[in-house]
Order: sequence, then structure tokens, then C-alpha cells
Amino acid sequence: MDKTELMNLLRAVESGSVTPEAAAAQIKAAPFEELGYAKVDHHRAVRQGVQEVIYGQGKTVEQIEGILTSMLESGCRDILITRLQPEKATALSEKFELEYNELAHIAIAAPVKERKLVGSVVVACGGTSDIPVCEEAAITAEVLGSRVHRMYDVGVSGLHRLLSQLDVLTTARAVVAVAGMEGALASVIGGLVDCPVIAVPTSVGYGASFGGVAALLAMLNSCASGVSVVNIDNGFGAGYLASMINKAEGVRE
Amino acid sequence: MDKTELMNLLRAVESGSVTPEAAAAQIKAAPFEELGYAKVDHHRAVRQGVQEVIYGQGKTVEQIEGILTSMLESGCRDILITRLQPEKATALSEKFELEYNELAHIAIAAPVKERKLVGSVVVACGGTSDIPVCEEAAITAEVLGSRVHRMYDVGVSGLHRLLSQLDVLTTARAVVAVAGMEGALASVIGGLVDCPVIAVPTSVGYGASFGGVAALLAMLNSCASGVSVVNIDNGFGAGYLASMINKAEGVRE
Amino acid sequence: MDKTELMNLLRAVESGSVTPEAAAAQIKAAPFEELGYAKVDHHRAVRQGVQEVIYGQGKTVEQIEGILTSMLESGCRDILITRLQPEKATALSEKFELEYNELAHIAIAAPVKERKLVGSVVVACGGTSDIPVCEEAAITAEVLGSRVHRMYDVGVSGLHRLLSQLDVLTTARAVVAVAGMEGALASVIGGLVDCPVIAVPTSVGYGASFGGVAALLAMLNSCASGVSVVNIDNGFGAGYLASMINKAEGVRE
Amino acid sequence: MDKTELMNLLRAVESGSVTPEAAAAQIKAAPFEELGYAKVDHHRAVRQGVQEVIYGQGKTVEQIEGILTSMLESGCRDILITRLQPEKATALSEKFELEYNELAHIAIAAPVKERKLVGSVVVACGGTSDIPVCEEAAITAEVLGSRVHRMYDVGVSGLHRLLSQLDVLTTARAVVAVAGMEGALASVIGGLVDCPVIAVPTSVGYGASFGGVAALLAMLNSCASGVSVVNIDNGFGAGYLASMINKAEGVRE
Amino acid sequence: MDKTELMNLLRAVESGSVTPEAAAAQIKAAPFEELGYAKVDHHRAVRQGVQEVIYGQGKTVEQIEGILTSMLESGCRDILITRLQPEKATALSEKFELEYNELAHIAIAAPVKERKLVGSVVVACGGTSDIPVCEEAAITAEVLGSRVHRMYDVGVSGLHRLLSQLDVLTTARAVVAVAGMEGALASVIGGLVDCPVIAVPTSVGYGASFGGVAALLAMLNSCASGVSVVNIDNGFGAGYLASMINKAEGVRE
Amino acid sequence: MDKTELMNLLRAVESGSVTPEAAAAQIKAAPFEELGYAKVDHHRAVRQGVQEVIYGQGKTVEQIEGILTSMLESGCRDILITRLQPEKATALSEKFELEYNELAHIAIAAPVKERKLVGSVVVACGGTSDIPVCEEAAITAEVLGSRVHRMYDVGVSGLHRLLSQLDVLTTARAVVAVAGMEGALASVIGGLVDCPVIAVPTSVGYGASFGGVAALLAMLNSCASGVSVVNIDNGFGAGYLASMINKAEGVRE
Amino acid sequence: MDKTELMNLLRAVESGSVTPEAAAAQIKAAPFEELGYAKVDHHRAVRQGVQEVIYGQGKTVEQIEGILTSMLESGCRDILITRLQPEKATALSEKFELEYNELAHIAIAAPVKERKLVGSVVVACGGTSDIPVCEEAAITAEVLGSRVHRMYDVGVSGLHRLLSQLDVLTTARAVVAVAGMEGALASVIGGLVDCPVIAVPTSVGYGASFGGVAALLAMLNSCASGVSVVNIDNGFGAGYLASMINKAEGVRE
Amino acid sequence: MDKTELMNLLRAVESGSVTPEAAAAQIKAAPFEELGYAKVDHHRAVRQGVQEVIYGQGKTVEQIEGILTSMLESGCRDILITRLQPEKATALSEKFELEYNELAHIAIAAPVKERKLVGSVVVACGGTSDIPVCEEAAITAEVLGSRVHRMYDVGVSGLHRLLSQLDVLTTARAVVAVAGMEGALASVIGGLVDCPVIAVPTSVGYGASFGGVAALLAMLNSCASGVSVVNIDNGFGAGYLASMINKAEGVRE
Repeated sequence: MDKTELMNLLRAVESGSVTPEAAAAQIKAAPFEELGYAKVDHHRAVRQGVQEVIYGQGKTVEQIEGILTSMLESGCRDILITRLQPEKATALSEKFELEYNELAHIAIAAPVKERKLVGSVVVACGGTSDIPVCEEAAITAEVLGSRVHRMYDVGVSGLHRLLSQLDVLTTARAVVAVAGMEGALASVIGGLVDCPVIAVPTSVGYGASFGGVAALLAMLNSCASGVSVVNIDNGFGAGYLASMINKAEGVRE
Repeated sequence: MDKTELMNLLRAVESGSVTPEAAAAQIKAAPFEELGYAKVDHHRAVRQGVQEVIYGQGKTVEQIEGILTSMLESGCRDILITRLQPEKATALSEKFELEYNELAHIAIAAPVKERKLVGSVVVACGGTSDIPVCEEAAITAEVLGSRVHRMYDVGVSGLHRLLSQLDVLTTARAVVAVAGMEGALASVIGGLVDCPVIAVPTSVGYGASFGGVAALLAMLNSCASGVSVVNIDNGFGAGYLASMINKAEGVRE
Repeated sequence: MDKTELMNLLRAVESGSVTPEAAAAQIKAAPFEELGYAKVDHHRAVRQGVQEVIYGQGKTVEQIEGILTSMLESGCRDILITRLQPEKATALSEKFELEYNELAHIAIAAPVKERKLVGSVVVACGGTSDIPVCEEAAITAEVLGSRVHRMYDVGVSGLHRLLSQLDVLTTARAVVAVAGMEGALASVIGGLVDCPVIAVPTSVGYGASFGGVAALLAMLNSCASGVSVVNIDNGFGAGYLASMINKAEGVRE
Repeated sequence: MDKTELMNLLRAVESGSVTPEAAAAQIKAAPFEELGYAKVDHHRAVRQGVQEVIYGQGKTVEQIEGILTSMLESGCRDILITRLQPEKATALSEKFELEYNELAHIAIAAPVKERKLVGSVVVACGGTSDIPVCEEAAITAEVLGSRVHRMYDVGVSGLHRLLSQLDVLTTARAVVAVAGMEGALASVIGGLVDCPVIAVPTSVGYGASFGGVAALLAMLNSCASGVSVVNIDNGFGAGYLASMINKAEGVRE
Repeated sequence: MDKTELMNLLRAVESGSVTPEAAAAQIKAAPFEELGYAKVDHHRAVRQGVQEVIYGQGKTVEQIEGILTSMLESGCRDILITRLQPEKATALSEKFELEYNELAHIAIAAPVKERKLVGSVVVACGGTSDIPVCEEAAITAEVLGSRVHRMYDVGVSGLHRLLSQLDVLTTARAVVAVAGMEGALASVIGGLVDCPVIAVPTSVGYGASFGGVAALLAMLNSCASGVSVVNIDNGFGAGYLASMINKAEGVRE
Repeated sequence: MDKTELMNLLRAVESGSVTPEAAAAQIKAAPFEELGYAKVDHHRAVRQGVQEVIYGQGKTVEQIEGILTSMLESGCRDILITRLQPEKATALSEKFELEYNELAHIAIAAPVKERKLVGSVVVACGGTSDIPVCEEAAITAEVLGSRVHRMYDVGVSGLHRLLSQLDVLTTARAVVAVAGMEGALASVIGGLVDCPVIAVPTSVGYGASFGGVAALLAMLNSCASGVSVVNIDNGFGAGYLASMINKAEGVRE
Repeated sequence: MDKTELMNLLRAVESGSVTPEAAAAQIKAAPFEELGYAKVDHHRAVRQGVQEVIYGQGKTVEQIEGILTSMLESGCRDILITRLQPEKATALSEKFELEYNELAHIAIAAPVKERKLVGSVVVACGGTSDIPVCEEAAITAEVLGSRVHRMYDVGVSGLHRLLSQLDVLTTARAVVAVAGMEGALASVIGGLVDCPVIAVPTSVGYGASFGGVAALLAMLNSCASGVSVVNIDNGFGAGYLASMINKAEGVRE
Repeated sequence: MDKTELMNLLRAVESGSVTPEAAAAQIKAAPFEELGYAKVDHHRAVRQGVQEVIYGQGKTVEQIEGILTSMLESGCRDILITRLQPEKATALSEKFELEYNELAHIAIAAPVKERKLVGSVVVACGGTSDIPVCEEAAITAEVLGSRVHRMYDVGVSGLHRLLSQLDVLTTARAVVAVAGMEGALASVIGGLVDCPVIAVPTSVGYGASFGGVAALLAMLNSCASGVSVVNIDNGFGAGYLASMINKAEGVRE
């Protein structure tokens, strides 16, 4: 509830059209639906520009069904469900229209037919094993309305593969750089482009990669400016942020 | 050297106006000046939109002088020097015009008188001890051309202090959230705004804060979307990225 | 054996009603029953106000049966068994009256029909995935005699969900704040209430949550006063402590 | 601003005695004073029962003076300043009445002459080197109105020293157990008493104590119920929480 | 090959009874049998007083068979095989006489009927879940000729259970203290006895026990003298060392 | 594309035999084949002397098939596939000629009948459990043309086993020292030989071996000169590097 | 207070020669002297065979004086003070007879003139920088009555230096193996001797030695039997334990 | 003492020209000089091709003098002393001819006038702050007889600086890649050259660089083949190994 809404509500109390009790109730009760195990946040689209996304891990099929139903009833479409295991996707697809990507474990419920995609987000990764995280980022950005260029297997130990696509890179409005092992991709790309680079460490690797820690630390220490980092394997977060940046209106003054 | 430049150079070779030897030399030698201990990157402004920034830590006064001289001779102004210890700043100010912020250990050499500032970047922090990192971020963003709103001591254990400035927060184009200790500020702000939030963990704290690791991990695990993280105490990186996002042109299609 | 008991026993020796040998034996042998693999502590209720609780993990069904039998024979009821896997619960329920919560993996043997519940303990969590730990805390507190209010899915990235229940929060005598990922819930609640907050980090999350370490560190660094922390996923410990605080008699002077 | 206050304010708007603009301003502006580098929280005593405590580390003498002045003007007395270095204490004592404990680096500004102390908080530690942290806890609890029993050098490698004071321990309403190195004290005490034990790991030790991590982990894994943990060396937090528990009114029903 | 053997061999060369070539070969080839995947160390009993022990983990049944056969042929009996999975034990027992302890995953091949046991080794643990590690220690010490007293479930949160067996403890010649979670048992025992205490951290626990790290650190930081530590879950190493100490001849001078 | 190639291409442009457009295309497009999920690097043998090696982990059978086909078509033979799970090997062997080592999970596709092996690489390990990593190193070195001496089960707790093969060790041109647990083998060998020692920590061990970290740290801290380290369990990397060193031509001047 | 003492005291109560009140007081008060900041344990020599040792770190000169005075008055001589900084040693030596070792920071107060030393403890280390820790161990063992052989700079990268002293090593009754960096010395010695080896990791090293962690882990993972470990730099603990083992009477049966 | 020497010695014993006692003495006593605090290894040059190097850290001036004197007397020249603090260098230079590099803290005692340098070792680093470690590597390699090319400030965020020197890189026989922060330099170079790359992580950086750990992990996880790693800041080790590889004779067959 932002300042304007608060002022309007208080004016309605002042004018007598709303009682104080009703106002207090409204301040408290409005923004979400209580499901017991979850509170579905219907005001999120208003507050943040994007409707609620369902984090599938750790939720039962029944809980996801409840949240989906609540969202569909309030008019949502193109609902993202991340980290959704295949068997849950199968169960859900019996009751809901569902597009499911097996690689990235991401689903779109009630998908919109033709999305209008704008701008340019590049999703790049170092190796074939990083593709699931890339796809999570790419699909997220596409559902949120961004045009995505996939640029896979461009690891820094063979620089010419990356350099051959410099023209796509340098015209992007945001780059998602996905890499496991030593995570150097983010720094190299960060030195080549003039837009924000969102680095995603992945848990790909073995031994001293420590489940993605090596890549995470490398990315946090990037010597290139304009690079920031999200959690290990967090393709969704990177795609979300890249799309937010890609779609931003220009500054006006 | 991007694709266009390569094509032009090759055409010049084809037309005979440039010899192959000169072309090869140009491909190699152009973009930087060799100082022995450093290679000053004069093409960086072309390639990335922002001229080179001098990282002061671990450089001698003589080395910084050399780099500054090289940059000034090639026409740079408003040159940022980060992590510059006070005694080095004093030494440098005898030879160069220098604005120095003692708190943030950041200097501006050959500062421009009146900068045109656009958009809105909020720099917020949880406690008084985080202010030096905040100032590094804020000054960086200002030198790069962004208008900055400082919002200090708005830690999550007293939410009303943060909520009282919701109107400034919600109209920002990028937020830098600086916090040590438990680092919760980024998540709380991330849930309130619809622009990118750049989280900066600080080394403020003691015991199990482990020099900023606690805040770093908390921020990487933020449950709010649109949050990404830079290195511990990296106010410069956050200010740079925030300004890059703030000043971006709108997507056109 | 506290001071009073020691004095009484020594007086009985002095008066000749107890021999020194019997006294020495009593000092040593009384407080527990030796089962070989376990020593059942029958004096615990006297010493600490709460009877022994059985930690189910790492114990065989036969071992738990032995301990249960020993406790039932000494008159215990409402016996908690924590971290009890479903198949063990099934096996035990054939020989004992057992209430089992599948989500929280906690059982009550020989449950009392109607418990008298007093005071107010709030058990709150950030997300749906934290509910199992919450239920372990809530059931523990209820068995120990505390009235419990469950407040689930009130994560800090959507503050209005938490703030809508401020009246319940501010009238609690103890709050259990359960959160994985960035663990910020404890700090935010700690800033809103004037009773002890017991923070429980959970292993919910992925990547840099490191199995609950991120939340643990955040909670240990809480900037709010009155917050203390128990082990990752230790819902039992938090529920036990919250109930102990909730049921305490007032200070008298 | 809790529910009752909100309702009263809204009723005042309804009755016309307060304008909506004034109400909105009050909701925002009231609870703290803006000093630029800090926001002094004057409503904290109302909201949490205890006035603001000043965390001295990382604040300049000038900043502390500003906060102290603001608090004194609003009527505060017995103001705690923690982690205050001796030279800052000396500087402050020229302008304010100040009691300073050199060992614990804690100061009381504008101290009250005779405090009424109630209940019983035990502050125990394993070795002589832990005393500074103990004193921080003890002084904090005393300033907040609790009677404190100090029990120093009762480490578990000489159990008889601890057992000799069982009568004091078993009549405490809260125990603060301070220990570095292996941190076993909390578990041993936790098995002897029936009140909450707040464990404080200290950074005392060397080698594999890792600045208190060994003790911290041991305490988090305590096999005794009723034990919770605060940050390494956080005597203030433990004393605050112990006093909160010690002074709680009894549950009424 | 110690000094005496070298001198004897060299004298034999001098006297002509052994050729230099044969001597060189003997220096090299004697002490072990080459199986390709293993080098069975037949001189170990001479050099170290105890014959080779087979570490079962990571070896195939065929490899263990090969080593066993080689050892049996050279006259070994009572051969310990540690960390032997049940299915491998079953396979081996078809070809060899084998005593197998399922709990401790330890086997004795070609067991001796009646061992002469001397001295007194106490094996103590904090909880029922630590028993497998205890049994590995106890069986190892017994096979090596030591009398063992098992003292299980004597955790420090119920000190009376441990204190009731003080007479057994104080007459031991070596104590193995096994504990997971906070690992305080070693310190408490270390303060009660005057013989070496070998501490074994176990991986029992959850959350911040980090697979035994918490107990390991606590034990390394023990404030009691005479305590040393072996690897997490290394019951074998502790039993071996305890038996070595227990059976040592007295110093003579 | 190195300097000579660039000069030649530029000269061809100058002479008119190649157009600038074709030259630019050639600079970009030549070195790899785009498979969508992978970019097969056909120029690697030219640039680095060894053709591409396929890292099998995280790739589907179909993806490996695609890469293999591409490489075979461009004339590759003796193609290494590392970390290839048995079921994938079985599937691939239906379509390709494949030598598969089950222990080391390494395959050779289209193997060459008789390799010419030169020089001497020693692959040594401390225990039987380290053999899989050793075999990965040994097979890699052999495929790359090096003669390999295997020296297994020569752990430092029985030095005579290692010393008995000093003549083989001291004539090696490179040694791969593979060890888990305490990783001391590399230092001991490093003190005996005058060629480079490549240390490979393995994840063999338990408890405080932390999946190979103990061995890794020990090897990084080796007090012997000439020792360097590769990732935990990275037999391939060590074999590759050992072979590179073994086969190097002598310095000429 | 062991079993016999308890029985005697109880019999005295039974016979009327001791009142119950006096008995209870004796059970509690006897074993130590209360200094406020410390409880001097005068029964320790009875209970553990060795009088109290003063840990100097973190204690003021005044506190050490108080403890020394208390011990001297109760008849102690040859009192060890460990981790005593030079300036404190100087201060103490004005009031007490003090032998101080500057390298090891260890002092002996009221030293005995001629100690009778028995048995054989070897103290060995890898490098010159480890000598301070060695001396702490050696002096401790000597004060406790053990004959000590120092064997310095025998690191594993030059095995011949260690092997040249095999005869001293193999006749020791206990070995203290001190090593920083990779800590391999303990394993190599453990494979050569048949007595207990007490490994002491040191903080000598840099980079990935992490203040002794590398050596600590290596030692905990030693593949040699009979090796146990004490805390990093804990020369005192190792010397104490080695002397305890060295001086033990032989088992009798 | 290798096989040939042993055979010769044994033959001398057989022929009577050497007595067994003398032979045993020779086997033991020859290879080093005992200084008490150090054992100077005079056979090292024979055994490993390079004479002993003095590690200056943790040694007193007197100890270094002793070792230097011993080495000079046995004919050594060009003696390296690493990690030598300036004040020690000053003290030593009064007695010995000493070349000292202040940046790298490395000294050469009794330096040879004109060294014959062969081959090509490249020492490259990412930033100006890494130069001290580079110089340690470069000077070490030069003293050992290798020609060195320094290539400083070629970090991956400005690839053109590195690529401009491709011709030097690709003709090197060994490359030392020095980098702090994200450590990506080793991977990028590893993908460009066909000789061994020795990666040296440096402690340059702040925050999540954790004193070089981030760079260390990145380098261990390098996706480029032919890369191995030495300890953080270990320029000496890298220079030593690079020179060993550079100077190796070619394989002959």
C-alpha cells in the first residue's frame, strides 16, 4: 500500500464513506489470499510489475494446484512454475494447460499463444552441461516479454567461439553469463560489452568446484565492471533480472 | 576491435591505402598504452561507454601518477580512483587536481565542475557503519552521471524507518542496498520495488559475520526477485552497475 | 541430585535409617534405567521439569520400543519421539498408541486426550517449504502445554503478509521464527515484538544456501535484540524453548 | 505503530480532529529522529519495552554524541553504549555523565543511581579469558533491571567447580553460558537446570577454535534442551535476552 | 629394515656369504608381496608390532580375497577387515572363516578362539547413535589383546549417568571417548581421569554438526589435558591407539 | 588464428585473391562446427597440439554421438571420452568402435591399433582405492603417446614399498602422484626425483578428508619443489599434462 | 571426589564424627580456591596426577600472580605457564623465580633444580620455523619428568635426514611429530615406529595452509595407525600427553 | 642414495675396501650438515638437479647466516633466499654479497655475474598488484637458467592486451600465469598455448577473494588442459617448475 493509496483511504474515512474499522481491515487484508500453507500475493503485479511466480521445489502437487487455481481465478495467465519435477508436471498437466521444459524443469501454466518479445537478452554458457540453467533463464525472460539469443558452449578455453559472435553480444541490452567450473566467462564477456552482465554460477563440475562455489567466488571477484551475481543455478533469477533491465523504459529528462 | 572496424581496416588493405604489416600492427598495438607495470586502456570508453577507472589498492603513488598522466594526455576528465589511502591522496593532490572523500577512500582527478545528473539511483544502508561503502557507490554513480538519493540507517529491525521513504524507493530506477550483519535489507527492499536491486554485503559486524560472508550468503539467497549481488564492500561496482541501468535508453520496437 | 536431596540422604545416613553403602548406591544408581544401548533418565522430569524426549534418528525400532516401555512403566504419558521415519512409526504403532505427523516426522506415544494449553507461542515461517520444521516446533510446544498460533508463508519479500497479523505477533509470549534461504524473517519479527524470538534456520534452499548455513549466519547476526538461534531444522529445540519461556511463572519480588 | 494506535488515529481522522495529511505525516514521521547518519528510534521503548541501545563500533565520537543528545532530550536515562573503545569513552565522558567498564568496553550514559533489580540471571563462563564477554552480558542485564550472579572459571574439565554452585544455578530464571574453545559449558549447564540457557561462544582460543567457530558449532549442536545461541562474543545480546526472560510476567489463565 | 638388519646384511656381504646383487635385491624386495593392485606388507608386524589391517572400503571382493590369501599363507590369524559392507562380508564368508559385526561393519578373518585380554580400555559414547563407531573401536582393541569396558549413552546433558561409573573410568589405562553433535564428552572425561583420552568425533547429528565437524573442532579445542583426536568416525584408529597405550610395557630405569 | 595466419590472410586480401568479406567470415567462422548444444573445435589440434577431448559427464548419449560424428568426419582417431558412465558407453559402443575402461570410466573411440609410446611417465598412488583415478591418468597419457609405468599402493606409511622402485622413479620424465587421505605421497616423491611431479588429490577417504580437500591442501602446501596440483580426482588433467611434459622437445640454443 | 573418598566421608557421617552439614560442605568446597576471576584447582594433582598448568594468554599479570601465589602456598613447584608473552614474563620474574623460554613463550615458576627424567620422548619437526612449538612440547615433557630427544628439520621432502635417526625413533616410547604446511611428517613417522605418535599441526606456512588447517587435515587423515592429533600449535598438549604415555606403568596381569 | 650408489658401496664392502661400519655410517651421515636448527642438504643438487633454496620466513638472521655459510663452504653460488624481509636482507648484506629485490622479497647470495639463459618462460599477470609474485617467479627462473618474458597487466577484462602478445605466448616453453581476484587468466592462456601453464593464485583482492581462495579454486577448475596450480602467492614454486620444464632435454627414442 503506497502513499497515494493510503491518502485516498484516509480521505474516504474523513468523508465518512469508509469506517475506520473497514479501513484498518483493508490495510491488513487486501493484498493476498490465505490458503493456510501459502498466501497468494495478488497485488504483486501492481507492486512489482510481474505477477507471482511459483517455486515448485518443496511444494506438493496439491499445494501447487491450490495456488494455480487461486491465480487463474484472479485472471493470471502465463504463470511460471520453476524447479518442478517431471512427475509433478505430469500430474498438473492433467488439470491445467501446461508447457513443460524437461531440461530446465520449468513449466508455464495457461500459456499465452503469441508473446510480443522486445529488446535483446543474450544467454551464454561455457559448456553443454550448463544448458539446463540457461534454458531456465531464457524461458523466464521470454515469458516476461524479452527476445532471447542463446549462445551455448562458448567457454573461455576456446575464445574464438565467443569472439565469433561479438556482434550479437555487443548489441544486447543485458547478458546472462552462465558458467560452472572456473566461472571465467562472466569476466571475459564483461570486458566486451557495455550492458549489465548477470553472472550465474552453476553446480556443474567436480572436486574443488564444490557444487558451484568456485564459479560463484570467481564471479563475485570479477575484474570487469557491470557484472553482478545471483545464486548458484539460479537461472530464473537471472532471466527475471535480465528481462527487467531489457524492458526498462529510457530515463527521461 | 569490433566487426565494423575490422571490415574497414580490411577494406583499406584491399584498396592499398594500408599495408598488411601496418594493419597487423594496428590490430595489436592500438587500444592501450604500455607503461610496463600497467597497460592503460584508452579504447575502453569506446568499447564499454565508460573510461578506465583506477583501482588504487596495491599501486604505488608513482604508478598511479603514470596512469593518470597517460589518461589526462588522452583527454580524460573526472577520473575515478578507488580504494585510495589518505596518504597517497595527499601525495597525488600535489600534482593533480583531486577531490577526495576520506570516508569512502575515493578520489576524482580533474573533476568536472557541473555534472548533468539524470534519473534516480537510491543508495540505502542498514546502519551507520555501512556509510563508507554507500558513499563509494553514491560518488561513483554521480561521477557517471546519475542522480543519487542517500537513505541511511534504515535497517530491517526498525521497518518504519524504511517504510517512511517508500515514495522515494518506488520511483527509483535502480537501488543499491548496502548491509552488513544479516544482510536482510536487500530482500525487504526487493519486495517493495519494481526496479533492479544491487545488493552489497559489507564487512561490518563481528563474530559469525565472518567479514561479510553472512550478509553475502543472505543476499545470494534473497527470496525477492530482481536482486543481484556484488563482492563484499564493493560499493564501486554497485554504483557503476546502478548507473549503467539508470542511464540505459529505453527499448525501442 | 540437588542440594536438598543430598542433605536429606546424608541426614538419613546420620540417623542410621540408611546405610552408607545404600546411600552410595542411591547416589549412583537411581536416576536412570540401564538398557545397555541407552540409559533412560527417569529423574529428568524432576530435574528439568520435562520428561525425556526420544530422538528417533539413528535408533532401531527395537531400541525405541525398549525406551518407550521403560518410560511407560515409570508412568510417562504424552511421550515425544522426534525425527521418526514413517516406516518406524508404522512398526511402533502396532504395539503402542501413537499419534504421528507425517510432515514433521514427529510422534506422540500414549497421547493425553485433552491438553490444557496456556499462553501464546507464535510459530511463523517464510515459505511453504518450511512448514515441516514449523510443525515439529508447534507440536512440541503443544505437547508441553503451550497454545500455538501458526503463521505460515509470511516471508520478508512480501511484508504486508506479515504486517497483517501484527496483533497476533505483538501479544505472543514467545515467537519461533523459521526460515531458510536468507533467514531475514527473524530480524524483521525481532524488530516488531517485545518477547524472545527463537530463530530456526532451515535447510530449505539450494546453491549458496549451503543446507541452511546462509540462514543460520543471518540469524546469528541479527541486528534485532532478543533473538537467539537453534540448530538448522531444529524445530523441536525451538518449540521446547518457546514453551519453557511461555509457561514460566512471573518473577516475584 | 500497532493496531490500537492505527485505529485511534483513523478515528481521529473520522471525527475531523486530525486531517488526512497530518495523519499520513504522523504515520511516517513520528517514530524516529533523522540525524542524517542515523535515525534515532524514539518509539522503540513503546514497541519493544526497551529503549534504543547504541552500538559503538564503527561510529565516530561525533555520531555517538548526536545520538546521545537526541535520546537525552527525549528523556532517556541509563543509556547503554556497547563496544565502545576506551579513547572514545574518554572523549564522551567530558560531555556526558558516563560509567565505563574497561574490560567489557561498555558504557552507561546518564546512569540511574539505584536500580531495582529483580529475579536471578546467572552469567557463567569456562575460563578467565571469557570474563570480558561475561561482564558485557552482566552489566546489560543489570541496567535492564535484573539481578545477576557471576559464576566465573567453571569450565567442564573440572566439573566440581561448577557442581559446587548447583544451588545458585538451579534457582536461576535464565542462565547465560559463556565459553570459548570447545564450548561444552552450555550443554553441561543445560542438563542441570530447568530454565532457558543462552549460550555465548567466545573468540577465546587459538588454532582450530577459528575465532569462536568451534564453540559456536558445539553450542548449536547442544544435546541439552532449552539451549539457544547468540553470535560469537555477543555478551550484550545474551544479557538482553536473559533479562527479557527473567523479567517476564507469568502466564495468566 | 632397521639399523641392525642393515649391519647384519652388510656383514654378510663382507664375509662373502651374500653377493652385493642379492643384498640389494633383499633391501628392496623383502618386505611385501606385490599383488598389482596392492603390496601386502608382511614385515609390518615386525616393524610396528601389529600385522596389516585391511581397509575394506573401495576394495573389491576379489582384491580383499587376494590380500587375505596372501596374509593367511604367511601365517596371519585374527585379521581385521574394517568398513566392510554386508554384501562383501557375505561373499567373503563363503571362502574364509569370518566373524562379522553388522553394526560396526568390521570383520575378523580366521579368528582366534580365546584371546588373552589384558589391562583396561574404556569405550564411552554420548548417545545410542554413536554405538557403531564404539563397536569398531572396541572390537579392534579386543582383537589386539585389550580388555574393553563399554560405557554407552553417557552424554554430558545428563552427567549423573557418567558419574555413576567413575570407578571404572578412573581405573582405565586408556579411554576412547566417542561423541557426535557437540562432542563435549571428551573434555568432561578428560577432566576426570589420569590416563590418555582418545577422542573420536562422529558424523551423528544434523544441520550445523556438518557431518562431524562440530564435534571434531570441539575435541581439538578441549580444555582438558591428555586428550588427542582421530578422524571423524575413525573407531578403528582410536581402538588401535588405545590398545597400543594399554598394552605398553612400563618405563624402566 | 595466430600472427602468421593473419598476415597471410591480409596479404591475400591485399593481392585481391580474397575479398574483405570472405576474410572477415574466415576469421570468425572457421575454427569450429556449430551443433547447437556444442561447438566442436576442429582447430584445437593445430592450436594446442592435441585434438578435442570429450568430457562425458552431463552430456546425453545423443550429444556425444553428435560430437563424435563431427570429429570422425574431420579425420580424428583415438578420441578420448572421459567420465563416461557405463550405460552410456554401452549405448555408444553400438554405433562406434569403443574401448572402455570400467574402472576409470574412460573410453577411446576409433582407437588406433598400435600406438608409438615414448619417454617415461610414472603414475603412482597411495592405496588400492586410488586406482580408478590413476587409470584415467595412465590411459590418457598412453593415448597421447607416452609410455607409462604404473606404481600402485606405495603409500607413505610403508616407505619401503616406494623406495624399492626408486630406479623407475628417478628415470621418469614426469610423475603423476595420486593420493587421497593425507596426500603426503606427492611431497615424498617430490623430494626423490628431479622431474615435474603432478599431484592429483582424490576423494578417497572419509570424515575430515572432506571429499579430497585434505589431500588437495596438503599437496598445495608441499614442501618439495617441482610439485604442482590439479583438481580433485582429475586423472585426465594430470595424464594430459604429464604427457605434454614427457613429450616436449629439448630446448635448443 | 572418587568413590572411596565418598564412602569414607559417608562412613564418618554414619559414625557421627562428621555432621551432614560439614559433609555437604566438604563435597562442595574442598577442591579449589576461589580467586573471583579463577578457581585454582588444588585437587588436580590427586585426580589427574599432574598439578594445574597456567594458560597465560588472556590473563593479566595480576591474575597470574594470584594463581601462582595460591599454588606456591599449597606447596606446588615446577609450575608451567604457557603462552606467556615476554613482557609478562619480565614482570613476573621480579616477584617469582622464573625460567623463561623466549622462543616457546613458556615459563617454569619455582623450578626444581635437578629433575629425574625417564623413558624417551622424541620431538621431531619438519622445518626450522616449527621449532617454537617443538620447544613448548619438549619443555613440558621435561618438566613432567620425561627424557626428550629433539629431532629438528627432518621434513619429508628430504627423507634421508629422518631415516638417518631411525635408531632414536624406533626406541622412543612416544613421538611428538610437529609439522606445518602439508603435515606429512606424522604419517611417515607413524609408518616407522611402534609407539603412539602425537601429531601437532603448526600455523607455519602461507596461502592455502590456512593457518595450519592443511596440516591439521592431513594429520587427521593419516594412513598410519597409532597417530592422533592435537590442536594447531598446541605443543603443550602434545608434550603433556607424550609424557603421560611415556611414564605410564606397564600393564600387570 | 640411489641404486647405483648403493651397488657401488656394497661392492666396496664386498671387496674389503670399505668396512660395514663405515658403509652404514656413510648411508646415514653423508647427505647433510647438522646445524641443530637445520640440516643443510648438500646432496640435493645431485639428487634433484638444483641446490637447496633457503626459505627465509620464520628463520632468524643468525640461522640464515649459518645455512649460507655452510652452503658457500661446500661451493654453492647463486643461492636463492625467498620471503626475506628487508631488514634481514640489510643485515645479511653486511656479511655476504647479496642482490635483493624489494618488491618480491627475494635475494640472491653470491650471485653469478653472467648467467647463460636458455629457452623461454613467460610470466604473465592480470594486474599491477600481482607484480611482486611475478617477480619472485621470474627471478627464480632466471637464477635457474631460464630466459624469461614478463607480460604484466593483461587481465581478461581487456582481452586485446593479452591477444596483442600472442606471438610471445605461443612460442613459450612454459607459462606462469599469475592472477588474484577471479583467476581467469590461467584458463584463457591455457586455451591459447600448447605448453604447460603453471597457475599461481595471488592474495590480491578483497571481500570474497578470501585471500586468494577464489583465484585458487578457479584455477583448479580450469576448463583448459595443461594447467596445474601451485599455492597462493607461491611465485618461487611456479618459477622453479617452469624452469624445470623449460630446460628439460627432449625425449629420445
